[in-house]
Amino acid sequence: MCRCSVHPGPTARIVEAEAVIMERLEELGRVSDEPSLLLFDGSGRTNRLTRLFASPAMKRANDLVASWMRDAGMTTRMDAVGNLIGRFSKLREDSKILLLGSHLDTVRNAGKFDGTLGVAVSIACVEEIRRRNQTLPFAIEVAALADEEGTRYQTAYLGSRALVGQLSEQDLALVDADKITMADAIRNFGGDPAKLKSCRVNGQDLLGYVEVHIEQGPVLEEKNQPVGVVTAIAGQTRATVILEGRSGHAGTTPMKLRRDALCAAADFILAAENYARQHPGMVATVGQIMAGPNVSNVIPGNCLLTLDLRHQEDAIRVKAFQELGTCIEEIENRRRVKAHSRIIQETTSVQCSTALSDLMRNAVRRHQPEVIDLVSGAGHDAAIMAKITPIAMLFVRCAGGVSHHPDESVRVDDIRVALDVLTDFVLSLPAPP
Amino acid sequence: MCRCSVHPGPTARIVEAEAVIMERLEELGRVSDEPSLLLFDGSGRTNRLTRLFASPAMKRANDLVASWMRDAGMTTRMDAVGNLIGRFSKLREDSKILLLGSHLDTVRNAGKFDGTLGVAVSIACVEEIRRRNQTLPFAIEVAALADEEGTRYQTAYLGSRALVGQLSEQDLALVDADKITMADAIRNFGGDPAKLKSCRVNGQDLLGYVEVHIEQGPVLEEKNQPVGVVTAIAGQTRATVILEGRSGHAGTTPMKLRRDALCAAADFILAAENYARQHPGMVATVGQIMAGPNVSNVIPGNCLLTLDLRHQEDAIRVKAFQELGTCIEEIENRRRVKAHSRIIQETTSVQCSTALSDLMRNAVRRHQPEVIDLVSGAGHDAAIMAKITPIAMLFVRCAGGVSHHPDESVRVDDIRVALDVLTDFVLSLPAPP
Repeated sequence: MCRCSVHPGPTARIVEAEAVIMERLEELGRVSDEPSLLLFDGSGRTNRLTRLFASPAMKRANDLVASWMRDAGMTTRMDAVGNLIGRFSKLREDSKILLLGSHLDTVRNAGKFDGTLGVAVSIACVEEIRRRNQTLPFAIEVAALADEEGTRYQTAYLGSRALVGQLSEQDLALVDADKITMADAIRNFGGDPAKLKSCRVNGQDLLGYVEVHIEQGPVLEEKNQPVGVVTAIAGQTRATVILEGRSGHAGTTPMKLRRDALCAAADFILAAENYARQHPGMVATVGQIMAGPNVSNVIPGNCLLTLDLRHQEDAIRVKAFQELGTCIEEIENRRRVKAHSRIIQETTSVQCSTALSDLMRNAVRRHQPEVIDLVSGAGHDAAIMAKITPIAMLFVRCAGGVSHHPDESVRVDDIRVALDVLTDFVLSLPAPP
Repeated sequence: MCRCSVHPGPTARIVEAEAVIMERLEELGRVSDEPSLLLFDGSGRTNRLTRLFASPAMKRANDLVASWMRDAGMTTRMDAVGNLIGRFSKLREDSKILLLGSHLDTVRNAGKFDGTLGVAVSIACVEEIRRRNQTLPFAIEVAALADEEGTRYQTAYLGSRALVGQLSEQDLALVDADKITMADAIRNFGGDPAKLKSCRVNGQDLLGYVEVHIEQGPVLEEKNQPVGVVTAIAGQTRATVILEGRSGHAGTTPMKLRRDALCAAADFILAAENYARQHPGMVATVGQIMAGPNVSNVIPGNCLLTLDLRHQEDAIRVKAFQELGTCIEEIENRRRVKAHSRIIQETTSVQCSTALSDLMRNAVRRHQPEVIDLVSGAGHDAAIMAKITPIAMLFVRCAGGVSHHPDESVRVDDIRVALDVLTDFVLSLPAPP
């Protein structure tokens, strides 16, 4: 089959599309719950992007995005917790649905692309399909999800969890920093916490969930490619390790009589790094360290470390944590220190659909020299949606891998590639049986 | 020469002497500027030992110690900054002087032995010599120094610096936490800051300065010996090392693209430890560490470390710091991080007098199985006195090497050995030419 018909090249219309997307992202970037924050030094105010679940800014963002959806020919609805969903279809109500989307909420002091890029590209994709007058054998819905970051209630994925039926009454009772319950926040927003179950999407109705997202890492930049196909969302083990040695006078305690907790920590930091380096696809990070008493002329008597371990295959990650435990035992014996390690959180990996990802790779192949497969080290709505439907993700290069920061930056050319790839992907999706 | 005459064995009298010393140390331990400190939890008050330079507690301590000196047959005087000096001599005023001593001030929340042990043993030594009716060819003076720890004015060795003429007008202008200048404090204490020069001791008049002090380290305990002879007071280099890498998402940044400042720090911590282990007598300590941003799911972008490096030979210490600098360069290149290291303080080592230390070793040999030579990793008044006279130091075992803490503990049997050794040492000292 010749695919040229779905790849018309950079026409004037398409050149416009990525500019429209960028303009929309800039506009959304000004829709903030902290639009005019006083600077600490009293020198004035700054526009800080923070858009929280069920907040006034989220209300304005939903209104804005809904207007774009309608401009693209979609009908829109808001579900009971505040997820905005646009539908594009000329088919019967009960036809199968391809769900595109991402989230509209942000962390505090966020960048303009995390989440919103996927929503804006999905809407532009629908516009492009409508422009081309292509008839699809399925409906497209675009989900602009109400919460992924968990900034307001310290628990993430509220939007997608509502869609898969995993937002609970217990969640609704959580309170934010102002002691407002989630139920009240939803009610104030115009939603209805009593109708939580109505948010549920039936997985049988879906062909899949496809999310475009900034990479939030440096791989695509390193490989000099605009987009990459996600094979899996890594599982994660978060743990703390406390090392107890014996503090002592830095001048009077000979080296061989020491039980230095910080030296033991150094051993562990390098062991974790080395282990991850030897196991492809693994990342291991000691991000936090606190030594005690932490005084220049006293041998550290204790040290707390965190370990963040991720891999796309759960068995490899679990084995890694066990083997690092053996490393710790060796350190304990050799250095006469005592270690206590504790798992704080453990999440399993999520595999992307091979069928959808293969179609995505075919689409990528037509728009950039190299097809890059990536594992997502960060969590995404797609990981939740995978509970009910096959998922695929397309990562877009972001400058320096920076995210969750105002410096988040994506090239307009890369947005264009992402739009072209997503459009080709959608058009290549076979008719449901 | 038979030395038996000066080693009478454990007679009833000597058994009493160490009990008297311990009783005096207990009594001094209750002479505090914070005798009755309110407990944080409101459960009552605690006796916390903190005795500061020129403070009310120091006044009472001086009075108490002066009374013991007089009981031992000494005449006493206080110099212009508050050093208490007892003199024991039947000789002419211009005869040579053996100066014994240590300090009476403490850190905050101190133990009972640091400093005071040397003063109490020195007085008991004079008592013992008087009891034996031994005629000495020199005078003994016992110095109970007014400040070694520097707790009140954040600058150490005020007492011994006055004796060697290195306390300056600038020092007198320093203020304590209550904004009281050192000059005023001395005046309030009954001293006379205008007469600073009168404190000076003429080195030509001295045979040497000999200090008994708790080890403040674990070596004597490890070797199971009551006392040890100090060969030198180590020189010290204190430095900071700042490592700058690049922070990033712990999940999305592959190992090989990382520039992890904490991993670089771990390399350095182990390099410093390893270097010290390979160089006998050296101690190297990274006591303080601060990573940034110090968050469990972010790769550390920067890390600050302190380095405390000590050795009895300055050339070896200086070379060590240079070679650790080369280590840092290797780490910079290998890990693509940037390092900035800075020397904060550097003090040179002080050698003890070979002649005096040999006499001390002879005395030790008669009272314990093994003669232990030690380098002092901590600073002492002796290091200052060395500027004008030969010095010797005798370390006394302390439990767990603990000092600067209420748990500081010395066995009464070890005090007895220290007293016997010091007495034998004094009696073995040849007549001045």
